[in-house]
Amino acid sequence: MPHLGNATAKAELGRAAWRVLHLMTLRFPDKPTPDDRETLKNYFHLFARLYPCGECAAHFQKLLKEYPPQTSSRKSASLWLCSLHNMVNKRLGKPDFDCLTLDSTYDCGCNGTNATTSASSSATENTAPLPTDPVHED
Amino acid sequence: MPHLGNATAKAELGRAAWRVLHLMTLRFPDKPTPDDRETLKNYFHLFARLYPCGECAAHFQKLLKEYPPQTSSRKSASLWLCSLHNMVNKRLGKPDFDCLTLDSTYDCGCNGTNATTSASSSATENTAPLPTDPVHED
Repeated sequence: MPHLGNATAKAELGRAAWRVLHLMTLRFPDKPTPDDRETLKNYFHLFARLYPCGECAAHFQKLLKEYPPQTSSRKSASLWLCSLHNMVNKRLGKPDFDCLTLDSTYDCGCNGTNATTSASSSATENTAPLPTDPVHED
Repeated sequence: MPHLGNATAKAELGRAAWRVLHLMTLRFPDKPTPDDRETLKNYFHLFARLYPCGECAAHFQKLLKEYPPQTSSRKSASLWLCSLHNMVNKRLGKPDFDCLTLDSTYDCGCNGTNATTSASSSATENTAPLPTDPVHED
């Protein structure tokens, strides 16, 4: 059992990582190119390997194997990541995160600028609401 | 000029991202395998492409082109990233970050567990101090 300082630091790292990851999927193109999709998929696998907490990294790697990244659209990527977040929450004894509040919980302050270099991704906007239907893919 | 809410969110995203990135390099193996090195290098390039703030992503991509990731050791990776952080700070009118305080500023609470799956990386410990000499590589 890690002492309080370590547990706090670990939780802070986790919060930071989720913020970055959720915002990446929330800014992912609505209609990604094959290259966009490959980029996001590879990113998650490298992230899981390099994540600084070894125990968390191993768990995330296992989750990725069981539930491969969904990358067909912003919606599918966002909801896929949210479902993974809730699997991690469950493991940690935390309450479920409401995936319909992603947009209001995570704000990147990006003013409509786009992170990707793909020509297909000019239509992404941070304010686009997430649909409520479940995603089945891959 | 973004309004206060956006600027705050953007800064919060930036802090979260730096936390994750610094801790990744601080937990990178002292003696990385070629595969470890490739993983870290590719990670930074994918990160720069997917970073949610488009303006920041473009700047980071430019920095990566000018100053390619240094991956020969934990020390070189950590100090390389710190120097990039200071280039971003300069652009934002922020004071320099003291690269010798990386270890005390960023704690992952990982208890000596290791994030990578490489057989070469079992010796990494979060408490290893960063040397003070400058790094020239690649």
